[in-house]
Amino acid sequence: MRIYDIISKKRDGIELLDEEISFFIKGYVNGEIKDYQAAALLMAIYLNGMNDREMTTLTLEMAHSGDMLDLSAIEGVTVDKHSTGGVGDKTTLIVAPIVASLGCKVAKMSGRGLGHTGGTVDKLESIDGFNVAPTPEKFIETVQKTGICVVGQTGDLAPADKKLYALRDATATVGSIPLIASSIMSKKLAAGSQCIVLDVKYGSGAFMKTAEDAEQLSQKMVEIGKGAGRNVAALISDMDTPLGKNIGNTLEVIEAVEILRNGTDSDLTEVSVELASNIIMLAQGISYTDAKNKVLAALKDGSAYKKFLEMVSAQGGNTELIENTDKFKKSAFSHKITAPRDGYISFMDAEKIGSTGVILGAGRVNKEDTVDYTAGIILHKKTGDRVNKDDIIAEIFTNDKEKIKSAEELFMSAVCFSNTMPEKKPLIYKVVS
Amino acid sequence: MRIYDIISKKRDGIELLDEEISFFIKGYVNGEIKDYQAAALLMAIYLNGMNDREMTTLTLEMAHSGDMLDLSAIEGVTVDKHSTGGVGDKTTLIVAPIVASLGCKVAKMSGRGLGHTGGTVDKLESIDGFNVAPTPEKFIETVQKTGICVVGQTGDLAPADKKLYALRDATATVGSIPLIASSIMSKKLAAGSQCIVLDVKYGSGAFMKTAEDAEQLSQKMVEIGKGAGRNVAALISDMDTPLGKNIGNTLEVIEAVEILRNGTDSDLTEVSVELASNIIMLAQGISYTDAKNKVLAALKDGSAYKKFLEMVSAQGGNTELIENTDKFKKSAFSHKITAPRDGYISFMDAEKIGSTGVILGAGRVNKEDTVDYTAGIILHKKTGDRVNKDDIIAEIFTNDKEKIKSAEELFMSAVCFSNTMPEKKPLIYKVVS
Repeated sequence: MRIYDIISKKRDGIELLDEEISFFIKGYVNGEIKDYQAAALLMAIYLNGMNDREMTTLTLEMAHSGDMLDLSAIEGVTVDKHSTGGVGDKTTLIVAPIVASLGCKVAKMSGRGLGHTGGTVDKLESIDGFNVAPTPEKFIETVQKTGICVVGQTGDLAPADKKLYALRDATATVGSIPLIASSIMSKKLAAGSQCIVLDVKYGSGAFMKTAEDAEQLSQKMVEIGKGAGRNVAALISDMDTPLGKNIGNTLEVIEAVEILRNGTDSDLTEVSVELASNIIMLAQGISYTDAKNKVLAALKDGSAYKKFLEMVSAQGGNTELIENTDKFKKSAFSHKITAPRDGYISFMDAEKIGSTGVILGAGRVNKEDTVDYTAGIILHKKTGDRVNKDDIIAEIFTNDKEKIKSAEELFMSAVCFSNTMPEKKPLIYKVVS
Repeated sequence: MRIYDIISKKRDGIELLDEEISFFIKGYVNGEIKDYQAAALLMAIYLNGMNDREMTTLTLEMAHSGDMLDLSAIEGVTVDKHSTGGVGDKTTLIVAPIVASLGCKVAKMSGRGLGHTGGTVDKLESIDGFNVAPTPEKFIETVQKTGICVVGQTGDLAPADKKLYALRDATATVGSIPLIASSIMSKKLAAGSQCIVLDVKYGSGAFMKTAEDAEQLSQKMVEIGKGAGRNVAALISDMDTPLGKNIGNTLEVIEAVEILRNGTDSDLTEVSVELASNIIMLAQGISYTDAKNKVLAALKDGSAYKKFLEMVSAQGGNTELIENTDKFKKSAFSHKITAPRDGYISFMDAEKIGSTGVILGAGRVNKEDTVDYTAGIILHKKTGDRVNKDDIIAEIFTNDKEKIKSAEELFMSAVCFSNTMPEKKPLIYKVVS
């Protein structure tokens, strides 16, 4: 078998055999297949696509390219949740304790923020003392004991995906549905949980710009997951506007705690409840209505909040900060952004607002960058809200005074105003299962 | 400007700006743009194409990526000829002395053989003493004095093409018309001649398998050449069968000398006369009929043959070998291949016959391989010929006795027989100018 012939086939729109896909992944990981050959093949896949069989094979090969996490020591149903990445998306901080409080086992690996989107690991690390890198034994033990442990990626999970993703990122081949689906699902399959609920975002702040693309991606991922014997569903949710009101690590923890403690009604609550309900449905084989009732009860009776405290404590975090979020360290500088006119906010470009957060210090441009946990944005108004001139739309926080001006400029370029109230889009477009 | 955005544009089928193409070529040659990024862009070009403007810009950028040969010191019209590569194609050995004898200035760089096709430089080197690497000064001086000098590539001609070609060869992106056209024409433009006649082959032994593809490629190359202010025409000729009867370096020189000396009528003579006539037409601005008459006269009155001897002598070759080709060194072993049945030869796969020559030692699999000048094949029968069982179809020559069996097997797999006479295809399909 020669990689040249595999590239030629895909270039000519011919489907690849399972053994050819396997040859590619193994050869690429061990370095026999060169970056430039993989890049040519990725572009051919981008332009000519892959059918479902090819995609499933690619995913399984990528999943098996490294460690496959063994969660069998954990009693009960292991569950996982994955978001394709959004701005202000702190649902893991809410969903994980809800479902753990309802008996699911959350042995979860999360990522760090990069570009305009944040990452759960950074958010958790903004809690003083929180350890996102326990030993594998401690990780399993914590889940056995408390039902929940959220950590950064450990071990050598799907190294093929890591290598391919870096290459896609440099060769403009990221935005291909078969490549995105296999990338996400290879990591989820390697991470070992039985039930997986995906939160596929669409809109200005998401990778998928339209609901149709998000639906296609969702279908592919659900199909791959089922093909691999897992229980999978995907929620398609709007990311045309940031989720919730806080953006930035500490600020997002504070917002999550608020919801866990008070069950405050918001777009963030709605998406979190929906995700948690779908997880409970899959894991416990009950109806959607029953699952949702359980989820709402866990929020209302404080058991989800209690589970969150338990998780923070088990992973070494300072629970005092959670019990009194005023104790969180704050940025040195803050600045209020006001409305330049009367009207309605007709659009808030989530990607640009995410990038505003990065300017303020809340995110990373490059993987090596350090993050300022306290930096970020609190939105006082969101899409659809009525504003009068000089009303506060948002407040920005940073430790670098110099950045305030450019952050405000970028933020304002992300916000559109109109005279009439904009049409409201549904937050949740569809559930694919 | 970022290469990422350039790849994205071409991926999405958007045409590239001139400055983007320039940025790509400059960046790739100086190493700032990586092989994997170039590979992704090449695949996107392969699949989404390039318009004429993009292709001309690409060609000029590649031509200007290294030395541009300055032939201005040479008095008279400089002419060049290029073949897209064939089996048994020794037309340069015939055409160059014909047109030089008619007053054109042939300051020509040729290549070496690789894969199933041979190269003029190897053929010339099979003449004892022939120097294909004079100094640049000596090269120009020889053309000024004798009107002809054929050498290997010197200087740093179109380094962008060299680097891109190697990458295309490893990434299955060779067979793209804009990439082939720009590759050939960048070298031809850098090589400096005013008139260029291209011999674009099609058929089983050629890169272009159909006449239509060959015509499209021809049109593109003529267009690029004219856009760069050169006088260009392209002949589209059949390479479904090897050209002439001899394949292998010494054997091909012998066949060329035969035609130059005796004007023997053959397919090889026909293509050579056609190429030479087109060069004379372009260079001297006369009608096709007048040009062809001049060419036929130069063959008949011995002036083309005299010019060939003059070239060999000026470049240090032993003219005794030319005057008596029996003096050429011969292979140690020869073997006759005979017809297994009565009938007609209905097809001879030129590529496989070229590869038979490589097995015998006449060609190279890798660039570093050495060539056995004496090895090769003499075809006694060609497509369309009537044969009786046990008639000799071909004779093969080698210094490696072990290779005879596999060479015969490959040769025979290339030949098809039929009971009825096959339809004769025209040797020259079209001239594009």
